[in-house]
Amino acid sequence: MLKLYYRPMACSLAARMALMQGGIDAEYLPVDFTTQTSLKDGLSFADVTAKKRVPVLILPDGSKLTENAAVLQYIADLAPGSGLAPAADDPGRYRLQEWLSFVGTEVHKAFLFPYFRPETDDDTKAILRDRVGETVAYMSKQIGDAFLLDEKFSVADAYLLWALLLVRFTGIELPDNLTDFLKRCMAIEAVAAAVAIEREEMQSFPPRT
Amino acid sequence: MLKLYYRPMACSLAARMALMQGGIDAEYLPVDFTTQTSLKDGLSFADVTAKKRVPVLILPDGSKLTENAAVLQYIADLAPGSGLAPAADDPGRYRLQEWLSFVGTEVHKAFLFPYFRPETDDDTKAILRDRVGETVAYMSKQIGDAFLLDEKFSVADAYLLWALLLVRFTGIELPDNLTDFLKRCMAIEAVAAAVAIEREEMQSFPPRT
Repeated sequence: MLKLYYRPMACSLAARMALMQGGIDAEYLPVDFTTQTSLKDGLSFADVTAKKRVPVLILPDGSKLTENAAVLQYIADLAPGSGLAPAADDPGRYRLQEWLSFVGTEVHKAFLFPYFRPETDDDTKAILRDRVGETVAYMSKQIGDAFLLDEKFSVADAYLLWALLLVRFTGIELPDNLTDFLKRCMAIEAVAAAVAIEREEMQSFPPRT
Repeated sequence: MLKLYYRPMACSLAARMALMQGGIDAEYLPVDFTTQTSLKDGLSFADVTAKKRVPVLILPDGSKLTENAAVLQYIADLAPGSGLAPAADDPGRYRLQEWLSFVGTEVHKAFLFPYFRPETDDDTKAILRDRVGETVAYMSKQIGDAFLLDEKFSVADAYLLWALLLVRFTGIELPDNLTDFLKRCMAIEAVAAAVAIEREEMQSFPPRT
């Protein structure tokens, strides 16, 4: 069985959404970043991954896969026909990779990551909010009436949904059509269940310092 | 024929390396970011891409592909057997995606991108340099005697090579084995030629403001 190291409401939530939407069994191992310890197996997280970041997906052969773009495509390929990703040799796959990269770089790493670091001061936060304005405007123009690639929820939607859930905590007001997108995603039973599990768990989870 | 919108020594250089190493013909269209104009076809760059970022690859059907992770995988798939990427359905492809994501998020967007923005002050630069220290240490541990995936230069190496060339302008001293990696890449004729073209061109190119 796959194992997923995660932190509640961290970007690893996208992997949980994909696993649940794809109907794939997995063991979920929460990581406490205050002590850098994996709570379920007691391992030092640095021993799990030198990157010290979630997600880490433990594959059936025991090897470890990291980075959302890779983890999400791996999970999607386990559920062909689920709509989680176009097939590996389908030209649509490049569009999926394009969105995964965009969310990972422009929304996650250029904005959310520095925004929530404790050493980031208010002036820098203002610069970051200003900078992400163009990113939000771009996404708003791209979003149609369904999901990023087509009528089905894909792993790119999972990653973007997670990002938008966090963007709302930065004082950025989302355009209506992005809020609608968020609602469309949350109307999917497995997706809503994944978010609910981690929201609930976060209530009693050690804060990240 | 493919067209590549690029800026000399910007991250689009990785796509040029891949095209040249794969023996793939392409037209190269430089973009002047001071005027947001494509110099060869005279187009406003905002009309080429609402993202206003390079690389933009124009595909044979006229559609546009952006984001290094997607552009590089597309190019690699045009040159099967070149070693630029494992086949789309080869498990090694996830390792390629993992490295592309790591370079794109941790090195490029979390570090190089904010570091070279004009609004970034010295205190923030110091935080960024401090933060990237762990990333550099991680890469140094992962690098072996050859390339990221195996004995052949892949598009992940192209992206990392570009990033390391720029990291050297931030006051970060690279560990010896990363410098060796850089030299190994630059010993590849097509790669060195790609870098030489853009270094030469940058001498007379309008600076980014």
